[in-house]
Order: sequence, then C-alpha cells, then structure tokens
Amino acid sequence: HLIAVLPGDGIGPEVAAEARRVLEATGLDLVFEEAPVGGAAYDAAGHPLPPATLDLAHRADAILFGAVGDARYDGLERALRPEQAILGLRKELGLFANLRPAKLFNGLEDASALRPEIAATIDLVIVRELTGDVYFGLKSRGTSAEGLREGRDLMRYDEAEVARIARVGFETARTRGSRLCSVDKANVLETSQLWRDVVIEVAADYPDVALTHMYVDNAAMQLVRDPGQFDVIVTGNLFGDILSDQASMCAGSIGMLPSAALGATGKGLYEPIHGSAPDIAGQGKANPCAAILSAAMLLRHSLGEAAAADRIEAAVAAAIAGGARTADLGGNLSTRGMADRILAGL
Amino acid sequence: HLIAVLPGDGIGPEVAAEARRVLEATGLDLVFEEAPVGGAAYDAAGHPLPPATLDLAHRADAILFGAVGDARYDGLERALRPEQAILGLRKELGLFANLRPAKLFNGLEDASALRPEIAATIDLVIVRELTGDVYFGLKSRGTSAEGLREGRDLMRYDEAEVARIARVGFETARTRGSRLCSVDKANVLETSQLWRDVVIEVAADYPDVALTHMYVDNAAMQLVRDPGQFDVIVTGNLFGDILSDQASMCAGSIGMLPSAALGATGKGLYEPIHGSAPDIAGQGKANPCAAILSAAMLLRHSLGEAAAADRIEAAVAAAIAGGARTADLGGNLSTRGMADRILAGL
Ligand SMILES: CC(C)[C@H](C(=O)O)[C@@H](O)C(=O)O
Ligand SMILES: CC(C)[C@H](C(=O)O)[C@@H](O)C(=O)O
Repeated sequence: HLIAVLPGDGIGPEVAAEARRVLEATGLDLVFEEAPVGGAAYDAAGHPLPPATLDLAHRADAILFGAVGDARYDGLERALRPEQAILGLRKELGLFANLRPAKLFNGLEDASALRPEIAATIDLVIVRELTGDVYFGLKSRGTSAEGLREGRDLMRYDEAEVARIARVGFETARTRGSRLCSVDKANVLETSQLWRDVVIEVAADYPDVALTHMYVDNAAMQLVRDPGQFDVIVTGNLFGDILSDQASMCAGSIGMLPSAALGATGKGLYEPIHGSAPDIAGQGKANPCAAILSAAMLLRHSLGEAAAADRIEAAVAAAIAGGARTADLGGNLSTRGMADRILAGL
Repeated sequence: HLIAVLPGDGIGPEVAAEARRVLEATGLDLVFEEAPVGGAAYDAAGHPLPPATLDLAHRADAILFGAVGDARYDGLERALRPEQAILGLRKELGLFANLRPAKLFNGLEDASALRPEIAATIDLVIVRELTGDVYFGLKSRGTSAEGLREGRDLMRYDEAEVARIARVGFETARTRGSRLCSVDKANVLETSQLWRDVVIEVAADYPDVALTHMYVDNAAMQLVRDPGQFDVIVTGNLFGDILSDQASMCAGSIGMLPSAALGATGKGLYEPIHGSAPDIAGQGKANPCAAILSAAMLLRHSLGEAAAADRIEAAVAAAIAGGARTADLGGNLSTRGMADRILAGL
C-alpha cells in the first residue's frame, strides 16, 4: 500500500511525522512517499498543490495530511493560498464524503466549555458533503446593474450528489445508533428543499435507520443545548463546515479529533481537524493525537485494517485516561513524548 | 405613535399581549392596531402576510411581532408557509439590520449548557444583514445538463448592501466596547471577499473601533470556547442566522432574548428570538421576557424613548434576580404572572 504523506505547514509536519511513526509500528506492509502541500509547496514550487503532489495523491492508496495555512500567504490571490490545496485535493480526487467524529475522551471532561455532564454525552459523527454546494458553484466578481461592485457564488446540488452523501449518512448510522439527522435550511433555500426531498427518497432503502430533519440554525442551538441527542448528522458542504467545527469544540478537544475525506473508491484523505497553528509550530508542543487517530481512520476506511485501527484508537484512549497530556490539554508532554506513550500502549 | 401588533402563531399571541401591556404601562402616547400574520393569517385570509397586514406594517411607526410557524403548514408550498411572513416583512419594509443581543442574566447562570464561569462572560450583539445574501438571490429548481433534478440559490452581495450593514456594526460597537468582529468565509466565497474588502473600507470612518475578521467556522468554535471575547459581530444573512441562534443558546435562555430588525428610517420590527412553540401554546406557560425586552428595544430604536427602555430592561433584570421564573427557567410562574412581576417593578 502506498501512503502519500503531505505534511503541509505549521505544526502539520510535526504531527504527521508521529502519525507516520504509529503507522510504521503496526507492522503492516506500507510504503510512504512525501510531498509538499499548502504554503510549503507554494514556497518550494510556486503553487499550493503542485503537479507532483497531485500526481502522488492520485497514485497513493491513501493520503495522510498534516495541516495547511499561514497568515504569511493572506496577501496572495485566492488560487495560490494554502487552503486551495485541500479544496483542490477534495475535488480532483472526488472525495465527496467527510466523516468527522466528535466525542469526549474519558479524562478530558474538563476540556470542554460545556458543563461536564453535557459534554460527556457527546458521541456523534458529522457526515459532510465535500465537493459541491456554494463551495464549488460558479463564482464571480463583477458590477451590478447599478454599477456597484458585486460578489456572487452559486449554491447548488443535484439529486445524484445528494443521494450519494445521504447513503454515506445512512450507512454510517447503521454502524452506530441507527439515527440520522439531516440538516438543511429548507424553509428558505431551493437547494435545501431538493436536499430534503432526495434524503427522504434514499431513506426508503434504510427502513432500519430513524431519519429526522432539522434546520441549520436549530442544529447550531441543539449542538450546544443537548449534543447527546445526535448520533449521525448528514449535511451539505457549507453547513457541515460550520457545524462540524462547532461540534468538535463542544467535545472540547480539537487536538484530539480526526477526519476522513472519502470518495467512491476506497481512497481517502485523512487529516486532524485542527489547523496549522503557526504560533506553536516547530516547538514540539503540538498534540499528535488527532493526526494519529486520523491514521487509524486511514487503516479502517482505506486499507480495511479495522483491527489495527481499533488498537491505535484504544492506545490513544488509554494514554489519555492514563494522564498523558500535551500543552493544549494542560500537560507538558512534547509531541514526540505523547506519541511515545501511545506507541508504548500498542 | 402607531404600533402594529402582529401576534402570529403558537405562543406568539400570549407573549405579544404581555409586551403590549408593558408598553401601555409606560404612559407614553401609543396607539395599537393588531393584524394576523403567519399561519393564523393563512387560516384567516389565505396568505401568511395578507395585504391588510402589510398595509398596517407600512403605516405603523414600529411593529411588535410575536412568533410564526406550526408543523400544520409544512405541507404548503413555500410561498404560503408562515415563515414567508417574516421574510416578506423584512424585504418589503427594507429592514436590513438585525440586532441580536446575547447576554446572561444575573441569576440564570445555571440555565446555560456552558460552564457557568464561561456563560457569565457572554455579553455580545450580533448584527446580521437581513435582506440580501443567499436568502434573496435568484432561486430555481430545474434539470441539470445530465437530466438530473437540481436546486439552485444565488448567494450575492453588492458593496452598498455590505457598507450599510457594516456601518450599523461599527455604530453599534461605538455604543459598547468598540470592538467589531466581521465574520465571513473569504477563503472560499467571492461574496465574502467582497464583504471583507468593503468592511475594511468602511472601517476608515471608524478609527476608534477595533476591527477583526474571522472565518465563520472558527466563529462557531469561538462562540463555544470563549464567547466573552466578542463585543459586536457583524455578518451576512445566512451566517448570522446560524451564529445568532448559537450565541443565544450559549447565553442559555432563549426565552429571555429579544431582537430588532431595522431599516434606514426609524421604523423597526421587534420580536423575541424564540419561536412559536406550538407544544406549549395556549397554556399560559410561555416566558414573556423576550417579547417584553423586544418592546424595550422598540422604545429605544424606533421611538427614541431610551429612558423608558432602560426602565423596562431594569425591571426584567430585577424580576429575574428576584427569583421570578417561568417553566422554561425551572419555575412555575405563568406568562401573565411573570409579566405582573415585571410590571410591579416598573
Ligand atoms: C480551509 C477551508 C477551505 C476548509 C473548508 O472550509 O472546507 C476548512 O475549514 C475545513 O473544514 O476543512
Ligand atoms: C423563519 C426563518 C425564515 C428565519 C430566518 O432564517 O431568517 C428565522 O430562522 C430567523 O432567524 O428569524
């Protein structure tokens, strides 16, 4: 299996290195190849997603991604900014389904801004559509009929795009609590009305999954009020961007949460949900858990190695329960030190 | 002064009646005229915003709005559903600026899902644009080139729309902590890039206000992690819909929070942020505080009666601090009983 390692910017290289070390420790037959991405790639090759990096991503069976972004690149035109690398990879590789689990780890009850008894109930997965919506609809800057500067972005979905992500939502719910909440804004948007219609149609194939619908503004409230009510949430690209970050923060430990971006084949891109954190880059302080848990998702979803994934996840949970803490969790373990604790438990 | 009272559906009539009673108790020279809106108007006149109601809204100096909506109308085509009344009023009256204060009341520290020490720091205003964005851009249902059903909504802003709401944001910040955070998704959307450009241009007129920018996904995180960092947030219609509900829930007491929708003239529409709550309608259980505080905003923003507004707000705060509690706050006062406590303090 060829694993593309795209470390990226800021703390990306530090956490990706530890995730790679954990993958190597599984004893599985894996080949690693590295390439620059994001700001690092812009510096090296003039583009956040250079052809050689994209080519590696195409050849690989799975992609281990660090993080991209740095304020240094804010002045560049949008097409050259680090974030375009991740948008480009999603689109080029057809990675339409983003899986974002959010749960509270035993021992981290105090890390959440929510009351401990509410935070403890969080155990959900957000399934976010990743290659459509207003992210990828026609965009333009222009002049209005009145001669004013104008910005435009088309929000759109077609039934095939909605149906395939809905299926991922239902399938994910089946592996868990069999409850799926579809989030939209059907009282205002045609895109959402189509979304709701199609999700209901697809539901006919999943009579064993309990489907509910919620408006996005209400979902943002409910994720604070009673996050324990959710099992799996399926939603569009834009709403998913907002709600998944909110849910992660409710769980209290964005240094702990992984994500997967999957396509129709087994290939996937795996990345911690945290960003590049330029302020602590290069200091060996970053929490590697989210990257290591992303590596576990890689084993499960792209390589079919569920047992190895389970072992890694158990080792992370055990390290945390045993008191291992990086700075973000109020401790003083280094990035490497935290990974060592996890490796010791493997 | 002519006040249009549009009670609407569910608990709307109950809470609007108490807000009206409080306005009457001010001794100001006010004339009230009532008209149906939402589902109640659909039942009475076949449309959620009948011509007579819209006409009253046009004639009035200010509008006291209850709440609209009931699942009974879900089967209707979108144009006839209760929510269209509020969207229609905003658009027809040019009410482009939504002010949504969110703060924790003394005595309600335990009502929030956030840790009390974090919830106690919440004291912010969200300034939401209300007549543009993907809410009012061109919408269509159709068939794609591949023959698939498709839904489309155009997100758009022009510079004039952004500049006028930015000014409301800066002006609001000036009356408070002089800090304005503009929320967008400029790393992905052209609309947001224009938004950010124009907000920066307008900032030149407000050198005394500290302006920052934040992506919407990060804002959703920060509202949970550290809501006390915000003074005034200015954002577009869609992001404002999501973030303002989230912020209200962080403050813990959606039965306590008012809102104003303002235009270029003094006219405004004032409504509690809570919905119609059909499950408790007609039982005299609803919390009237949000409606009463909306009436206070009406006095301040449309009638220039700041002193009377202050008195009402102080009376609500005193009632709460004195232990007055409706069911949503864990007490057993009726809607009328809570209003009586507030009136007694006036
Ligand atoms: C960096 C940005 C373009 C991206 C997104 O909005 O999708 C990020 O926020 C994410 O959620 O992965
Ligand atoms: C009812 C609905 C159309 C409305 C909106 O989305 O604006 C509501 O959620 C609000 O925030 O006032």
